[in-house]
Amino acid sequence: MARKLRFGVLGAGRIGKIHTENLTNRIPGAEVTALADPADAEREAVADRYGIARRFVDYRDLLDLPEVEAVAICSPTNLHYQMIVDAAARGKAIFCEKPIDLAIEKVRAANDEVARRGVPMMVGFNRRFDPNFLKVRETIAAGKVGAPQVLRITSRDPGPPPEAYIRASGGLFLDMTIHDFDMARYLMGSEVAEVYARASVMVDPVFARAGDWDTAVITLTFENGAYATIDNSRKAVYGYDQRVEMFGSGGMVTVANNTPDAQILCDRAGIHTALPLHFFLERYAESYVREMQAFVDAAANGTPVPVGGEDGFKAASIALAVAQSVRENRPVKLVEIYEGMAPACQIS
Amino acid sequence: MARKLRFGVLGAGRIGKIHTENLTNRIPGAEVTALADPADAEREAVADRYGIARRFVDYRDLLDLPEVEAVAICSPTNLHYQMIVDAAARGKAIFCEKPIDLAIEKVRAANDEVARRGVPMMVGFNRRFDPNFLKVRETIAAGKVGAPQVLRITSRDPGPPPEAYIRASGGLFLDMTIHDFDMARYLMGSEVAEVYARASVMVDPVFARAGDWDTAVITLTFENGAYATIDNSRKAVYGYDQRVEMFGSGGMVTVANNTPDAQILCDRAGIHTALPLHFFLERYAESYVREMQAFVDAAANGTPVPVGGEDGFKAASIALAVAQSVRENRPVKLVEIYEGMAPACQIS
Amino acid sequence: MARKLRFGVLGAGRIGKIHTENLTNRIPGAEVTALADPADAEREAVADRYGIARRFVDYRDLLDLPEVEAVAICSPTNLHYQMIVDAAARGKAIFCEKPIDLAIEKVRAANDEVARRGVPMMVGFNRRFDPNFLKVRETIAAGKVGAPQVLRITSRDPGPPPEAYIRASGGLFLDMTIHDFDMARYLMGSEVAEVYARASVMVDPVFARAGDWDTAVITLTFENGAYATIDNSRKAVYGYDQRVEMFGSGGMVTVANNTPDAQILCDRAGIHTALPLHFFLERYAESYVREMQAFVDAAANGTPVPVGGEDGFKAASIALAVAQSVRENRPVKLVEIYEGMAPACQIS
Amino acid sequence: MARKLRFGVLGAGRIGKIHTENLTNRIPGAEVTALADPADAEREAVADRYGIARRFVDYRDLLDLPEVEAVAICSPTNLHYQMIVDAAARGKAIFCEKPIDLAIEKVRAANDEVARRGVPMMVGFNRRFDPNFLKVRETIAAGKVGAPQVLRITSRDPGPPPEAYIRASGGLFLDMTIHDFDMARYLMGSEVAEVYARASVMVDPVFARAGDWDTAVITLTFENGAYATIDNSRKAVYGYDQRVEMFGSGGMVTVANNTPDAQILCDRAGIHTALPLHFFLERYAESYVREMQAFVDAAANGTPVPVGGEDGFKAASIALAVAQSVRENRPVKLVEIYEGMAPACQIS
Repeated sequence: MARKLRFGVLGAGRIGKIHTENLTNRIPGAEVTALADPADAEREAVADRYGIARRFVDYRDLLDLPEVEAVAICSPTNLHYQMIVDAAARGKAIFCEKPIDLAIEKVRAANDEVARRGVPMMVGFNRRFDPNFLKVRETIAAGKVGAPQVLRITSRDPGPPPEAYIRASGGLFLDMTIHDFDMARYLMGSEVAEVYARASVMVDPVFARAGDWDTAVITLTFENGAYATIDNSRKAVYGYDQRVEMFGSGGMVTVANNTPDAQILCDRAGIHTALPLHFFLERYAESYVREMQAFVDAAANGTPVPVGGEDGFKAASIALAVAQSVRENRPVKLVEIYEGMAPACQIS
Repeated sequence: MARKLRFGVLGAGRIGKIHTENLTNRIPGAEVTALADPADAEREAVADRYGIARRFVDYRDLLDLPEVEAVAICSPTNLHYQMIVDAAARGKAIFCEKPIDLAIEKVRAANDEVARRGVPMMVGFNRRFDPNFLKVRETIAAGKVGAPQVLRITSRDPGPPPEAYIRASGGLFLDMTIHDFDMARYLMGSEVAEVYARASVMVDPVFARAGDWDTAVITLTFENGAYATIDNSRKAVYGYDQRVEMFGSGGMVTVANNTPDAQILCDRAGIHTALPLHFFLERYAESYVREMQAFVDAAANGTPVPVGGEDGFKAASIALAVAQSVRENRPVKLVEIYEGMAPACQIS
Repeated sequence: MARKLRFGVLGAGRIGKIHTENLTNRIPGAEVTALADPADAEREAVADRYGIARRFVDYRDLLDLPEVEAVAICSPTNLHYQMIVDAAARGKAIFCEKPIDLAIEKVRAANDEVARRGVPMMVGFNRRFDPNFLKVRETIAAGKVGAPQVLRITSRDPGPPPEAYIRASGGLFLDMTIHDFDMARYLMGSEVAEVYARASVMVDPVFARAGDWDTAVITLTFENGAYATIDNSRKAVYGYDQRVEMFGSGGMVTVANNTPDAQILCDRAGIHTALPLHFFLERYAESYVREMQAFVDAAANGTPVPVGGEDGFKAASIALAVAQSVRENRPVKLVEIYEGMAPACQIS
Repeated sequence: MARKLRFGVLGAGRIGKIHTENLTNRIPGAEVTALADPADAEREAVADRYGIARRFVDYRDLLDLPEVEAVAICSPTNLHYQMIVDAAARGKAIFCEKPIDLAIEKVRAANDEVARRGVPMMVGFNRRFDPNFLKVRETIAAGKVGAPQVLRITSRDPGPPPEAYIRASGGLFLDMTIHDFDMARYLMGSEVAEVYARASVMVDPVFARAGDWDTAVITLTFENGAYATIDNSRKAVYGYDQRVEMFGSGGMVTVANNTPDAQILCDRAGIHTALPLHFFLERYAESYVREMQAFVDAAANGTPVPVGGEDGFKAASIALAVAQSVRENRPVKLVEIYEGMAPACQIS
């Protein structure tokens, strides 16, 4: 039996459980040997279920274990920065859920610290590893649609999160659309130069109370001259709607939503098929396995991680520009965001 | 045999032939009794084929025939205005191809003249009568998608028109997207308040030479608060791509492209189906019949036409605003267009 | 204007009206100059609508008109034989609706008479001219599915015909499945050697009272060794279900049903699309135009008709064999049918 | 951590590996504590990979372990019978891959022995647990297609197995179609009364040399009066084709094939989508997990297994009848098979 990369998982919540399950049962080259979470019940339940011996209230105690080679940071966003800094200081390979931080300065600082310590860090833009989007990326990269011209992304949730989540989320663009910004960069193979967006509250007044939006349409202009449109909603009654379409000089590629079954029912009323898989846990189950496998492979072989801190920084910067565009109802160049940052955060 | 509405057709070109064919063979309540076109060969060929006895070089001679009750204006755009004015003066019911004119002032003037003369005038936004879009409109109107929130329209031609056509066309937005602007108003059931657009030349430098664009992404904000995105290209190598999708509080409705056949071929290389119908003559063949039937019914019964001069004016105004938005890279309110007009063209 | 082939139509019922409409308005090279039907009201209504001057109670008077070059036989089946014989005697080109006759001996006799008189006769297996099935045939003929191995045909009506129709129809196989037998021969490019079938009454006891069946599954074995399965029902609540699928050594080709629109509606309950076009008048509207165009072209040019009397004879023979197989619950070879015939009907 | 059902796996080949993987990593209530296989390399590789401590050359030694509560019989078919008898004698819960045996008498004898010992035995008709077919079954059971009338099953392999496999397989019907026979019973909810089938060699002469067939079309008549057609091929160049369609008085339900991705690529040549998942390991991966979960649940709770020895016996009996029908080219009643059996095998 080949040696396994030993993981400490920081956080036993929803996403922490997913990564623990995958590292334990689905990824041959990894194992979870330690788990940290201040919430006793959750920590013990997860550790019991997966037979994890070392359990900690304070994640720093976990980081002190020399046998832990890699960490999966699955804590609330406001803890990411410090955990990254502390893990990097102890030389651990780092997998961190998105976003790195809600403050772009801290994203940059975390990236700088990781670079200084020379540890690998991968950011959890899991959708890149979804079999459908991966296939689309390969098709584009193989030149099958020619030069990219217009990308369309539709991303709609089945329903809004709880108010407390909304208030801590950083808003629609940093919480939800950030995945689409990363997807747009990934599929386009070019950087965003300028954005324009409209957003409003159509779904639920809770978003207005939180100073947030629930519906948006966004135009991105890329450095290569191509465009992307993104439309978001916090509530599609027919379920989680996740589609991309790339149009180019040589053709067009798109993907249908995934469904729980392929049944077609014909009755007097019409022809009926299944709604999309409920939400991200179902829709992206396979992508979570594949992204962690990619991290394990990179960490084990010393090769570059496929999605790094810079990707997290770029997606967050686009989110900031988009929010500013909505507030000011004007196109915003990414360079405006970068110039407004502290020197350390600027793109040279 | 019920009496038939007697038509004079003005113009024996591509679209003139379509309307002559439909009025002669597909619409029971109509007949073409006169045809005018200064081009001898085309006029005589069409008149011979459809057995049209009265043939004219000058359309005004046709208009002088008392037995002609209705005219179908199928001439080049720059002739529309005068033909409308002359036909209205002689009390003919008018069907006019889109756009009414490239100059918004003349659109307004034509509409005013038609109103003053009290004749019916229908504008050829044939896509409203396409069975697919008609069905979508009915679905939205029946409330099956709830309150409209985000409309997406994709409209791509199979290839660019000749340079001469481009130079006389009024540009991408007045020539091609104008159909999408009308479709957006039709499906949304609300007026456009503001636009933002990006456009460039990705397909063929001929568009740049003509001061035109071939690729665009457009955001419309409606008075009801909803949004629409439109993306256009003058060249989709896989053919004529005509899709709409309305997302609302109660669901989503969309239509697939029409294809010449429903064959599915499975071989070693994959599963293959047909490309969309080639271009508008094939794709919208049925819509041309239905729109003319609607005009004939309205003219025969004295009921209002389903698409009037005001619809032509509105779509053209949106096109102007969009062109201005591209040139200035900023959102443009429709009220800016209206305020910049001569008083007669303003929306009170 | 090119000279038009002058038609006399025999029968002003449902199918007579279709052919009159197509010959008058859809097929440039033809015109209907005479119509015969003993039913005064129907004859006069159709003749008025299409401006047909010559009208006859007795079809023989129509046949006596020298200017009539071709006839379309659209009468009840029991009149086909005599009309064919009489039309052939007067040298008319003949288009005859299927089936030629319910008695195989009379089918053979009609074919013999047509051959003796040297006139062209085409049988109305219109489905061969349906754009979908035509495309499938081309795909098979082009070798894209390799050597044919298994053909599947599903053919289901939206609902049973009236009892009087059933009693005069010749039964499920001669009335309904005969189209599928012709389609099977057409797509397979080989003759049927043996059949086996099961049939029963599942839809409506009216079929049992008429000594008929409403549901069947049929296996055909072809001379080339390949198989076909056909399943029929007189009632599919979701509408007219017309599908074929050819599986071969190089792939598989199939067609989806045609629908009135391409709308996709997503709501809380699922994803919904349209049912198939209602019944044969809608589903095969285009095929009626194309088959008659093919007949007109053949008659005008003196080239062979694409579907002749022999095709009618073969399909009827298969129908007889299938009925015998059901009654005796055993495989029946086509040679049994041929051997049981009077010498004139045998396949040499 | 809840107690886990302790499994011994008999056989470390392809299917043994699948069940070991699932029992170890995918099914929370089970664990594999022992593995038996006479092939040293395979046994040790699998045991190492999954950390299985107890390893045996002779399966009887494994059966002697008191801590083993259940066995998964994944050996070649000719060993199933004795393993079942020996496992039953030691009171183990038994999961056995299909078919139980190639000789119907031994199938019956195994079932009798299991009944006499009072142990649960489940047979590996995994397709019943495929999410698509499960959904179809639920739809039928819920009455959404009304009374079943015609079932169609298409089952085609991507390519033939090796000659040695063919020779030991029991032939097309016992090896491959047996799954379809079980599926037909499962979906129809009725027993087969009579069969008729045609079969031949169209794919590869190796089947003829082995006295087997590679292509078949089968008609089943059920006790409830409904029909099923099954068509099989050992080679579909476009991949593993697994479809079912149930037509009934209230509608029709079917399922599309599963594909590795949902990509749609449009280029000049057409619209292209993915071929089906390669073969049964990919297509039915999820069904293997779910069937074993069902067995574990039944064994742990003492509830009846969802697919028992009687199901294995019925499917094998249909296979025998079908083979006889092909050899004699006549319909064969199931009662003929049962009457030809030794008394112990007869259906009372």
